[in-house]
Amino acid sequence: MSQAGRVATPPLVPVLAVVGVGLIGGSFAAALRERGAVGRVLGVGRQRGSLMQALKLGLIDEIATLEQAASQADLIMLSAPVGATQSLLEGLLPFLRADTLVTDAGSTKADVVQAARAALGDRIAQFIPGHPVAGAEKAGPEAADPGLYRARKVVLTPLPENRNTDREHLTRVWEACGAQVMVMEPEVHDKVLASVSHVPHFLSSVFMWQVATAADSDLRMALAASGFRDFTRISAGSAEVWRDIFLSNRAAVLSELKEVKDALLRAEQALEDADGPALEKFLERAATARRLWGSRSGM
Amino acid sequence: MSQAGRVATPPLVPVLAVVGVGLIGGSFAAALRERGAVGRVLGVGRQRGSLMQALKLGLIDEIATLEQAASQADLIMLSAPVGATQSLLEGLLPFLRADTLVTDAGSTKADVVQAARAALGDRIAQFIPGHPVAGAEKAGPEAADPGLYRARKVVLTPLPENRNTDREHLTRVWEACGAQVMVMEPEVHDKVLASVSHVPHFLSSVFMWQVATAADSDLRMALAASGFRDFTRISAGSAEVWRDIFLSNRAAVLSELKEVKDALLRAEQALEDADGPALEKFLERAATARRLWGSRSGM
Repeated sequence: MSQAGRVATPPLVPVLAVVGVGLIGGSFAAALRERGAVGRVLGVGRQRGSLMQALKLGLIDEIATLEQAASQADLIMLSAPVGATQSLLEGLLPFLRADTLVTDAGSTKADVVQAARAALGDRIAQFIPGHPVAGAEKAGPEAADPGLYRARKVVLTPLPENRNTDREHLTRVWEACGAQVMVMEPEVHDKVLASVSHVPHFLSSVFMWQVATAADSDLRMALAASGFRDFTRISAGSAEVWRDIFLSNRAAVLSELKEVKDALLRAEQALEDADGPALEKFLERAATARRLWGSRSGM
Repeated sequence: MSQAGRVATPPLVPVLAVVGVGLIGGSFAAALRERGAVGRVLGVGRQRGSLMQALKLGLIDEIATLEQAASQADLIMLSAPVGATQSLLEGLLPFLRADTLVTDAGSTKADVVQAARAALGDRIAQFIPGHPVAGAEKAGPEAADPGLYRARKVVLTPLPENRNTDREHLTRVWEACGAQVMVMEPEVHDKVLASVSHVPHFLSSVFMWQVATAADSDLRMALAASGFRDFTRISAGSAEVWRDIFLSNRAAVLSELKEVKDALLRAEQALEDADGPALEKFLERAATARRLWGSRSGM
């Protein structure tokens, strides 16, 4: 990165490889580029169309193979579906430089750790699992946004084998994207995400399914308004992506669903009993918590 | 309404009385005024502050009592909480002119019909129940918006006693607000609204309650993102208003909740069995229905 006789500081990530150049990977590259924190960006993917689009949009500098990514990149970001983690890491391993750091952006972490251990064996120290908790209503490289991670949380679930310097480096990289890094155990991450992300999606989809399959669904849909719109918005997400999330975080999702069902039974009983005070108390507790969250989170 | 020697057509509603000058009633008055469809607007209410605010905002022309509204208005809109319907109608009855039409904006209709019959007796022909299905995230006269009902559905559930000319007149009034009028039985209305409005609110509140009361709720809230935001938005609504809606539409809400729980059990079983194809099929059905609804409704 020297220019016209001046020696510049090397960027935080001299060569970045993004495997899966959609919203998540594309935004990561765009955010780092905007901050001048990346030198060259290699894009790896299955879909030629997405790669060409990412190239055209300037998200990546060149299209590369897993082999090229493994041998050239300083940091490799896996932003393909979670189910592909093991095979991608297996593809990288034979060519992986000893000083290359690999991370991911998967929505679940315990199964990613398992897949990474299976694929990398004694090279596991080079992999630090991560999850940027950012909304992903849109998809594809054209949705990539350098501001996607600004003020968003990124969870890292480092392994005992990871070097401290690598953890610190990855934290700085995410901070360069504007994100706030939190560190926790993979199982804690999965339980919390089951609660605030996977269960809402499951319930929203179940509800939408029930309305859509009712005999009078046309009439129902005709009278659905803004409450329905907000409550069901997430159910429009990719069935394939969410199937994988539910399957990969199955135990935690089932456990949280049980808690929600218990709460539902209690609230239903209050309604069954026409117990106004109990109903109001429960509604008030929920409303107060939601308003507080809204004002604190700025969402 | 004659001006300087010219005789103008009288407005659709020469004198309108709005009982409850919040978002719903205030927007109704504002919409009619914007279209030149109303002459004078009387505002009736319990809260002096709201009435003064409505006066200041030009939503109403004067503050009135129930007695004045009953003896002066051509059309009376009840836009107070549903639980107040019977006592308001009882207050209007002794002074109600024979040619005054009364309607309401309550979220449930079977119980409103029952309350109206109890209050009005053989004057029931003068009451046509209605429900503008418009989002009400905000409240109060300052939230009133002449465009609130534009392209929104308004359900009328007329009674056998109502005169056809009155039904047609009320339809024209709502159409002047930009709304699309649908006519159905009160029980059908209540069942459909239980499905697309009350049950989502119940589930959203139950979920929010469960997250807020969990031991690690702070961590959960810290990792909640845009899916959580949308899914829980309705749970921030007024506990008092929603307690009344649930109680007044209790049977239909309980019946719909049962249907949703049955669907939930089936989806949970697919997850329990790690049945990927079944999970994906159910998610795909929900996603397709939601996308179609979004593109058709423009929401």
